[in-house]
Parts: sequence; C-alpha cells; structure tokens
Amino acid sequence: MEQSALSPVSLVTGGAGFIAVNLIGRLLAERKRVVAADNLSLGKLEYLDPFRSNPLFHFIQTDVADRSQCDDLFRRAALHGTLQEVWHLAANSDIPAGLADPDIDLKDTFRTTFEVIRSMKAHGVRTLHFASSSAIYGDHGESPLHEESGPLLPISNYGAMKLASEAQASAAGESHLDVVNLFRFPNVVGVPATHGVLLDFVRKLKADPRKLDVLGDGTQRKAYLHVSDLVDAMLFVRAATRPHKVVIMNIGPVDEGVLVGWIAKQVVARVSPGAAIQLGSGSKGWIGDVPRFHYRVDRLQALGWRPRLDSSAAVLRALEEIAVQESVAGKGNR
Amino acid sequence: MEQSALSPVSLVTGGAGFIAVNLIGRLLAERKRVVAADNLSLGKLEYLDPFRSNPLFHFIQTDVADRSQCDDLFRRAALHGTLQEVWHLAANSDIPAGLADPDIDLKDTFRTTFEVIRSMKAHGVRTLHFASSSAIYGDHGESPLHEESGPLLPISNYGAMKLASEAQASAAGESHLDVVNLFRFPNVVGVPATHGVLLDFVRKLKADPRKLDVLGDGTQRKAYLHVSDLVDAMLFVRAATRPHKVVIMNIGPVDEGVLVGWIAKQVVARVSPGAAIQLGSGSKGWIGDVPRFHYRVDRLQALGWRPRLDSSAAVLRALEEIAVQESVAGKGNR
Repeated sequence: MEQSALSPVSLVTGGAGFIAVNLIGRLLAERKRVVAADNLSLGKLEYLDPFRSNPLFHFIQTDVADRSQCDDLFRRAALHGTLQEVWHLAANSDIPAGLADPDIDLKDTFRTTFEVIRSMKAHGVRTLHFASSSAIYGDHGESPLHEESGPLLPISNYGAMKLASEAQASAAGESHLDVVNLFRFPNVVGVPATHGVLLDFVRKLKADPRKLDVLGDGTQRKAYLHVSDLVDAMLFVRAATRPHKVVIMNIGPVDEGVLVGWIAKQVVARVSPGAAIQLGSGSKGWIGDVPRFHYRVDRLQALGWRPRLDSSAAVLRALEEIAVQESVAGKGNR
Repeated sequence: MEQSALSPVSLVTGGAGFIAVNLIGRLLAERKRVVAADNLSLGKLEYLDPFRSNPLFHFIQTDVADRSQCDDLFRRAALHGTLQEVWHLAANSDIPAGLADPDIDLKDTFRTTFEVIRSMKAHGVRTLHFASSSAIYGDHGESPLHEESGPLLPISNYGAMKLASEAQASAAGESHLDVVNLFRFPNVVGVPATHGVLLDFVRKLKADPRKLDVLGDGTQRKAYLHVSDLVDAMLFVRAATRPHKVVIMNIGPVDEGVLVGWIAKQVVARVSPGAAIQLGSGSKGWIGDVPRFHYRVDRLQALGWRPRLDSSAAVLRALEEIAVQESVAGKGNR
C-alpha cells in the first residue's frame, strides 16, 4: 500500500453501487484519490472494473454499519492520504424489502450514516456529502416540494431512515462537521441499474415477452434524472459558495415528469414490441410509493445549474443503457 | 397476575419518568388499566409510589431498546387486558450527555421508538402517542415554528433522534398503525423534576447559596409549559376528531416565553435571597441549545384547547414544587 500522505482522499461509501460508480469516474477525472467502500450486498465488484487499473483508486470491502469495520475503514483510507471528504451513499435501495423488514433500512440506510458520522468525528474528517432522498417528504399531494417544505412525514421505512440520517448529519453540523451537503435525490435512472421501474419492466418482458404487468394504474407521474446529471449537480453544489454549514439541495429535472404508463410503452417498444400492457388499479404502485409529487429545484437552478436531460430524455437514454446491460435482443422501433 | 382480557390497557414507556408519572395519574382517573415500563436509568421507582395501591396499575422494569425485552413487555402487558394504546415517552432527556456520546440518544431516544413500533406491529396494537420535541426544528431564528415548518435541522443528537423517531412512526402510519399522534413538546416544567434549568439552578444554589452561575448571557427566551397542562393537551388531542392518521401537534403556551435571566432571579428569590447572579456570555447556553424560538400552537388552539398557566406562571408553580422536592429551607420573598 503506497504512502502519499499529502494527496487528498475522497471516501465513497456504497462505493460499488449505482450512484457511486458514476461519481467515482468524475472524482478520478478530478485527479482525486478515491477509496470506495462497499459491503457488496447490493453493489457489485464488477461495476468497479473500469477503475481497477487507476493507481488513484482503491476498494475496501467492509460494512460501515458495523462500528469496528467503519473505524477500520477510516484508518485504512487515511493510509492513502489526507481524508478530505466523505460521500456517504451506502443505503438499502430496495424500498419494498425495507417495508417487509424495517431492520434492513435501520441498518443499511440509517446505521451506516450514524457510524460514518461517528467515525468522521473520531478521525477529524469534516466534510460530508450525503445522498438523501425526495422520499423524506412523504405524500404532499399537489403541493410543491422545496427544501423548506414541511411537514416531513415519510411513508416508507426507507424515507424514514433517510430523514433520520439527515437529522443526525444536521446535529453533527452543529458540533463537529464543517460542511454538510444533504442532497435530496429524485428518481435516478442510468446504469449500472440495480433496481427501479425501468429495470423491473425490462426484466418482466425478458421473462414473458407477451405482456407487461404494471403496478398501479399507470397514472403515477414521476420526474426522473439521469445519473450523469445527478453527479454533475452534486459536484456543482460542492464547488458553489456556501450560505450555511448545512445545505439542503433538491436535485432533479425542471419538468413535471412522465407517466408510468408512458414509460411502460417506451419499454415495450424497445424491448418487446407488441407486448400487451396490463395496468393494475389505484394510483399507488406499492405501499410507500408516492403517486405524484411536484419536486421543486429552484434553489439548484438559482445557483446556475441545469440538467442536460429532462425526464423523458433521461428515461429514454437509461432505457437504452439498461437494454444493453440486460442483453436484450429485441430491436427498438421507437 | 389477574386475567381481565376485556379491560383496555394503556402501555406507557418511560413510565417512571417525569411526564409519564403525571400522565399515569390522569389515565388511572379515566379508569384505564395502565402498564408502565421503565428501565429506571433516569426514571425512579419512588415516583410511582402513589399508584402502587391501585389495582389498575402495573409496573414492569425493562429496557424497550432491547428487542427481546420489548417483545416480552408487550406479551406481559397483554396478560392484563387488550392493549389499546401505547404512550411512548421513553427517551434520554439529558441533551448534553447525548452530545458527548451520540450512542445515548441512538439507543434511548431512537432505538426505543423503533423497537416499540416493531412490537406494536407484532402484537397488533394500532394507536401510538409519541413524545416528540420542539428540538426537531433546530434553530430558525425569529421565524415562527408551526407544525408544517421546515426545514427540520435539529442541532442536538437528542433532537435528531426525536426526528428519526417521528419519521419511523410516520412510515408505520402508512403500513400498520391507525393512529399516530406526534406531540411536539416545549420546555416542560413541574415535578418530579429530573433535569432542566429550574432544577439546575435550585441545586446550584443549594451547593453554594452565595452565587448562581448562569450558562449564556441570560437573554435566551424560552416558553414553558407546566406538565399538568402538557398532559391535559395530549388527552385533549387524543379525544379530538382526527383529520389524518398521522397528526403532528405542537404543544405549548401561547405567550412568547420568559428570559433565562428572569428565571434566575425568581429562583434566587425563592431559594437563596441575595445570592449573586453571574451571567455567562453568548446567547446559547450549550451546544445544541436553541437561544430563542417562536413556537406556534395555532393548531392546538384551533381545536379549542388553552393552557391554564402561561410561561411565567408555569415557571413559578414548578419552582415552588421543585423547592419542596429538593427540600430547600430558604423562605421565598417573592
């Protein structure tokens, strides 16, 4: 293990996950030294293959929800240089699994945050970028959701433990952290896809090319951001002037989003043209699903950032990427 | 252990604590069967002496942060009748202790909530009354704090873990709870006092009757509610018509509060007339202390509830009660 005590190190938890893999490429392009940590429960080592040959990249398999493992990670990461910032992206990303067993979100979504913040204190690391979620808001019907909206009444255990994480990070901002970015993610699409409506639809059609069952009546309207834009927005905010120690930032497209029914049509057209779309009933896809919401990103816009892809463009690009990832043979006619 | 399967049982966690002791008296007056649970880390068994002779009262020493103990509590409580509601009041109430060691609030303030909600699901109990706190809001300066105010950026680990608890209760309201009351407590005064500025001042003067050191410059303005009014408000809300499954309710007086410097003068006058008041510096008493805030209780007022005591009257009554509790000899001249 090389010693280079002066190089700044970015520690990325959930480092083999969907968002992290896209972030790490950008950090390495900044000539940052990156230590990626993941327990590989959802993340996959193969996602990191493109970085393996980069001498600035290091991977450590560990579970940051475990105190001794988390502390050990910080010790080992510090051997590579000065720990400058933590991107805490580790979380359970399977909302239905968290509903069935709240222990999953307790451990993977909240306890990870608690232990990472604790280790940051112990090791004197003072900059935290946290992957929060629009799920912390809960169901506000037609009301616009900006960063100061309340009340915060999440309807999934996932959203609850993301809010719990925000709360702990906020308190740490009062005591031992200098920079706390609470990035509230929208629905994010892209590859490597591990979950989400696009992957779900593509896999259903692979299993049965004749029909596509859709949870809910298809009228759920959701805004989507492509992962490349998400990462771009976070790095943009990181570089921006800070009004406060703790900054909340909704990240998302500026459009009103697309209907789940429209997504189903696009996936069918790309993956299995002619397949029958069978809609369910009700405007919610599952318990904890927020049927529609008006996610406001005025704050991010006011900083001068704009996404390159709107919801429909993000979905179409991700659909193409996921079709390749899943080795779908069908030729699109869209 | 008597079997009376049809009598409704109220389970009160933190049952030997300050708020619970006052609540239990009211529940027993309703002819409710009450099972009080406490780990006796902060609560005291002697506080429950007045209820010992009441056949409707039961005490179980247990730590609800521990899963098996919590489940066992629910099993044992159900032997006394049908578990109708849970008053979850167990929490760490020592904010500075939680700052020094976040594990305290993680376990006593949040994990207790998580396990109680989990046991409610397992045992089919669907009504939760939760002791939340104005500390979930954080420091909003001069902005009024109503139930829908945001952002929620707590500045203490205590406030963070109360917000985490609200979040978990909110998500449970989407899945397995029918009634979730999130009572956001103000500063509450009365006896049995276990912490707080009044007890702190009284004890300082007992230790040194010549002077009273005040943390901060005394200009912190805080609203206080007497515990008798707090309990009254919660029972009032419990009986009110519910607009939603999850109801947030700020509880507090309608006045703007009193200055910490004024409180110091009252305590000196009652406990040790002539003692010198030595003010500190800064508007915060400690990290995590919110110097002043405008706590709005419009929602509670709109329901028709009013406190009997305003902040100054609440402080003066509690001061008298605490002086008796602490066996202070000094005669007041106020």
